[in-house]
Amino acid sequence: MNFASDNTAGAHPAVLEAMAAAAEGSAPSYGADPWSARLTAKLSEWFGHEVAVFPVATGGAANALALAQLAPPWSAVFCHRESHIQVDECGAPEFYTGGAKLVPVGVPGGKLTPDDLMTAMADHPKGVVHRVQPGAVSITNATECGLVYDPADVAAIADVTHDAGLGLHMDGARFANALAYLNCAPADLTWRAGVDVLSLGFTKNGAVAAEAVVFFDAARATDFGYRRKRGGHLFSKSRFLAAQFLAMLEGDLWRELAGAANAAAGALGAAATEAGYPPAYPVQANEVFLTLPVALAAKLKTAGAVFYPWTPETGETGLYRFVCSYATRPDEVEMLADRLKFAGS
Amino acid sequence: MNFASDNTAGAHPAVLEAMAAAAEGSAPSYGADPWSARLTAKLSEWFGHEVAVFPVATGGAANALALAQLAPPWSAVFCHRESHIQVDECGAPEFYTGGAKLVPVGVPGGKLTPDDLMTAMADHPKGVVHRVQPGAVSITNATECGLVYDPADVAAIADVTHDAGLGLHMDGARFANALAYLNCAPADLTWRAGVDVLSLGFTKNGAVAAEAVVFFDAARATDFGYRRKRGGHLFSKSRFLAAQFLAMLEGDLWRELAGAANAAAGALGAAATEAGYPPAYPVQANEVFLTLPVALAAKLKTAGAVFYPWTPETGETGLYRFVCSYATRPDEVEMLADRLKFAGS
Amino acid sequence: MNFASDNTAGAHPAVLEAMAAAAEGSAPSYGADPWSARLTAKLSEWFGHEVAVFPVATGGAANALALAQLAPPWSAVFCHRESHIQVDECGAPEFYTGGAKLVPVGVPGGKLTPDDLMTAMADHPKGVVHRVQPGAVSITNATECGLVYDPADVAAIADVTHDAGLGLHMDGARFANALAYLNCAPADLTWRAGVDVLSLGFTKNGAVAAEAVVFFDAARATDFGYRRKRGGHLFSKSRFLAAQFLAMLEGDLWRELAGAANAAAGALGAAATEAGYPPAYPVQANEVFLTLPVALAAKLKTAGAVFYPWTPETGETGLYRFVCSYATRPDEVEMLADRLKFAGS
Amino acid sequence: MNFASDNTAGAHPAVLEAMAAAAEGSAPSYGADPWSARLTAKLSEWFGHEVAVFPVATGGAANALALAQLAPPWSAVFCHRESHIQVDECGAPEFYTGGAKLVPVGVPGGKLTPDDLMTAMADHPKGVVHRVQPGAVSITNATECGLVYDPADVAAIADVTHDAGLGLHMDGARFANALAYLNCAPADLTWRAGVDVLSLGFTKNGAVAAEAVVFFDAARATDFGYRRKRGGHLFSKSRFLAAQFLAMLEGDLWRELAGAANAAAGALGAAATEAGYPPAYPVQANEVFLTLPVALAAKLKTAGAVFYPWTPETGETGLYRFVCSYATRPDEVEMLADRLKFAGS
Repeated sequence: MNFASDNTAGAHPAVLEAMAAAAEGSAPSYGADPWSARLTAKLSEWFGHEVAVFPVATGGAANALALAQLAPPWSAVFCHRESHIQVDECGAPEFYTGGAKLVPVGVPGGKLTPDDLMTAMADHPKGVVHRVQPGAVSITNATECGLVYDPADVAAIADVTHDAGLGLHMDGARFANALAYLNCAPADLTWRAGVDVLSLGFTKNGAVAAEAVVFFDAARATDFGYRRKRGGHLFSKSRFLAAQFLAMLEGDLWRELAGAANAAAGALGAAATEAGYPPAYPVQANEVFLTLPVALAAKLKTAGAVFYPWTPETGETGLYRFVCSYATRPDEVEMLADRLKFAGS
Repeated sequence: MNFASDNTAGAHPAVLEAMAAAAEGSAPSYGADPWSARLTAKLSEWFGHEVAVFPVATGGAANALALAQLAPPWSAVFCHRESHIQVDECGAPEFYTGGAKLVPVGVPGGKLTPDDLMTAMADHPKGVVHRVQPGAVSITNATECGLVYDPADVAAIADVTHDAGLGLHMDGARFANALAYLNCAPADLTWRAGVDVLSLGFTKNGAVAAEAVVFFDAARATDFGYRRKRGGHLFSKSRFLAAQFLAMLEGDLWRELAGAANAAAGALGAAATEAGYPPAYPVQANEVFLTLPVALAAKLKTAGAVFYPWTPETGETGLYRFVCSYATRPDEVEMLADRLKFAGS
Repeated sequence: MNFASDNTAGAHPAVLEAMAAAAEGSAPSYGADPWSARLTAKLSEWFGHEVAVFPVATGGAANALALAQLAPPWSAVFCHRESHIQVDECGAPEFYTGGAKLVPVGVPGGKLTPDDLMTAMADHPKGVVHRVQPGAVSITNATECGLVYDPADVAAIADVTHDAGLGLHMDGARFANALAYLNCAPADLTWRAGVDVLSLGFTKNGAVAAEAVVFFDAARATDFGYRRKRGGHLFSKSRFLAAQFLAMLEGDLWRELAGAANAAAGALGAAATEAGYPPAYPVQANEVFLTLPVALAAKLKTAGAVFYPWTPETGETGLYRFVCSYATRPDEVEMLADRLKFAGS
Repeated sequence: MNFASDNTAGAHPAVLEAMAAAAEGSAPSYGADPWSARLTAKLSEWFGHEVAVFPVATGGAANALALAQLAPPWSAVFCHRESHIQVDECGAPEFYTGGAKLVPVGVPGGKLTPDDLMTAMADHPKGVVHRVQPGAVSITNATECGLVYDPADVAAIADVTHDAGLGLHMDGARFANALAYLNCAPADLTWRAGVDVLSLGFTKNGAVAAEAVVFFDAARATDFGYRRKRGGHLFSKSRFLAAQFLAMLEGDLWRELAGAANAAAGALGAAATEAGYPPAYPVQANEVFLTLPVALAAKLKTAGAVFYPWTPETGETGLYRFVCSYATRPDEVEMLADRLKFAGS
């Protein structure tokens, strides 16, 4: 009953097999290998658009590098106040951008809105030398709270972003979950909706460590290779990153795994509602947020469930996050659901 | 006949098996998993000294992070002029240190000497606010030219370093090769000789991507976790880094593989000498540098050998680097040796 | 009728005379001159405490350098949401700290409170590697809204700051105004109340360009000279910075000038109240904030008054800032007061 | 007899008078004042070319900011090994560029040559992701050793620089001395010869603190204002920087002062030659380098002469630097000359 995070899961056997297959024989290093070439081709096909792809091993690296490419050091990156880049990367975006300022906007548990953005931008007028300048916009899909921006949501954000002359970044650490929920084409959720750079993450979806910065316009990627290299993120044996992606993409494993995680979360959310604990946010991707009595949360833990408070427990109830992964088994969900029902009754 | 680099080899099956075994079941992320704990214990045993271990995926990251921990932004890092940190990391050390200056010393093809160091230090007097201040010393073992610092060499460098109040870093991207050559204890070549921080690399020795920053004094590692995290180098599924190290260390696979690479290089060096092309530098680790007619080098390439000029080919002869790896087969060495003999005769 | 800012004033003749006097003869450069030595002695006397003093030319430099000394790159600097460091320095603190995150707290128009701070700190738990770590606290005295922290206010903030193991920075761009308002000893408002580092600014108080980073504990200043130098802020002819400070301090010119600015603001505030426009914030230092009809503001401008909206004018009324300086003449205040009365009647 | 540096001199009375005159009345801050406008107009006239001008207070700031504008963080700045940016700015260029690598070239006591540059550039091939990329070229005129690049020298460097697609920076901390020596137009030594950005320094030539980054192509200056601001180098009372420049430029004071300094150095060089100590380098600008017995140097110091060894005194003779300034009096030169003659005889 491990609902701590989708990164406490291991990795899918097919990913490991692909890596093992890639381990044989010599191949050029630093991205000049055949797997990396196949990855670019495959992703270009997947997105229905030529893309420039830069695999790295962590989502934090993908995000920070992508933002550094968009936002100059004297600029503001507008992002949600609960976004990973703002809250959970120990200042990696600031480090990679050379000191850009993350401007947190929006309300807890929500998605970023065009209005949020416009208000924040108005506070950073262009040309005023005292103020950091508008630099980039970043949204997370699916969000940290398990919500999904649909193509229209993204397009609305992209319009405001582009009108301000900025680039739009999407943190897609759970892009597969968003896509599986919407059942739309990867293109619809990215370049067609106005995304300029995507952090495409498969680690949470069953890879070992497979993230990539994907540019939909090669011109945006100029000199990006140097950024990645000097960040220490260019793998010598780059085939092992590419092979993971290929395992996910050549045969729709990504969809199977993300679908399974979403389904588990859906089942948990439904069971919780039934038990009298309706989720705090709509369950769209693979996360369920429940407001529970602190005492109940303690009991669940005692019973073996692993999960975390989303906000500090300050009173008699707390807000708790339950994350499902590709590896979450139905019996784990059922067992947790039973405990909730029993406690709620 | 791929002698381009030891990172053009794939990865040893035992490493992949260990990763596959680690892929099952859930485990805490971000280094709190059992594999990571076992790695710290294993390395402490290996070094005969308690160590603080921070695995990362690339040698560039390990080096840059380690140097950032030792050298303040306003300081000089003294290193060999052919060192990887100076020549081949696209400024990663400068990025991570916040702008420290790498001061290249020593002669091409040589090891750093205490005299080199003292001269360079004298040029950076302490307390002179105009000059970057002595910050750290870094040596590479085995060197980029395949030479090995023995414990006495290291101790001599460490003495000068410590007398200046600085910390000593060792880039051990080929530490296993150095160790296998010397057949000494890991302790002898590190903390006993005065090394403060080691970049311990197993990627070139048959891992997928397994490097670690190893501190021999925990106090030196204060706040290092934040540096690694904000560099985007903390793996969520950290077990997969630890598992690779464990595959290497639990059973001396590291020695078997490094020994094989060294032996192949030794055989190639001997054959080259016999053929009338004695290596430019003593063959100690897994690299052979040959001064060859440019025309011969071209013939070798046509025959399928993959290798690179070490310095630009400017005249009729060039200096070429041949790197052997754990995966270099005897028949590859023989075939290359034959070509040399045939050409040299 | 220039109420745009206290930095639109020129400089007091005594300051220029002191600089002219210092211009004669040769003297060691880079801070080794007699004026700089006298400044350290004078400030140590002024504060009743030995201080380490680092003059620079701008308040932005003083603040950013001071914060870089306190807050590591992976940390959070807690500050008021309207503070100069957060809003008006184009990211200088982020640049100098190497990417620390400024965490804006408090309510508009208010002073930072211990509760504000504790809430923000709780959101950045120590030891959690994903989150930027508590790094420093910065308050501005007098604030951007003309409020003054008294010694008890400062002490309350300092207690929370020190309990968290952090250092307290005070942005004293208008320190003289705060001191003149409180009529207390410089010591009472700084080290006795717990301030660790002060940006002491006299530029707004009638100097040409005279700011200094003042450490009350020399140990805090270790290596600070290198920071200043590599920021390009070490004057070669340092005597000219020191001479300005000495002109202010040797004879209490600072108090005369700050007192005059405060008095002008007080008079303006009183007149505004009488005219039916009571200041939005208590008038303590040299600034007056008035909520006025936009139409009236336009009339005042037509009549020659120079001042700025503090927040964007969005409706029929706006919030306007009027800053008085040492050079504000009584007739300017009266003329503005007349216009307000006339309009308000 | 102070020959320590041209920055141990004070400042010329005309500069102080100009500042005092500028001190009266209110004026917009942050560069929007009339003096700053006049400065841009005056420098555009002086250079015979429209320029974008950004005054700052130190030469280190001007250099570091200018280089940051030209050279990306992952690049190499090619400069002379004795250049101020490499040796005497405590890493300011590395700090401002975000970690670019300064690549020192050329021979001690010499000027940078096109061959030096081409060799260094060949060592940094474009597109190789491991190596820092060619970023900018910087020369110093007059050099640290008192040599002057004439327009043809500059043009030869500029050709190589521009052929590589890079920008050329000139550190003109002693630009006035170079110009006075050559007696050519400012245009000839800058944009006409291919200089893209000039650090124009008048501090060593009798100003209080007056340096400026001058762009000859406004497009090169895009966003430079934000760099300056976040470096803490934008003066609020910017009029006081502009006024100093105007004092120098409106009436050729700059030439009078630089000419005097050069003449003093010329006289000293001639006298030294006569005394049997011919200067180590041709005396072109305002510096004289003499190889003297260490014992003689000691005697000169005892006699009251202030000067520094240029390189560490290691044997019986040393290389000493004598700098003349606008304020060096003929009797000081004569007195020193006498001592040399007396000692040399």
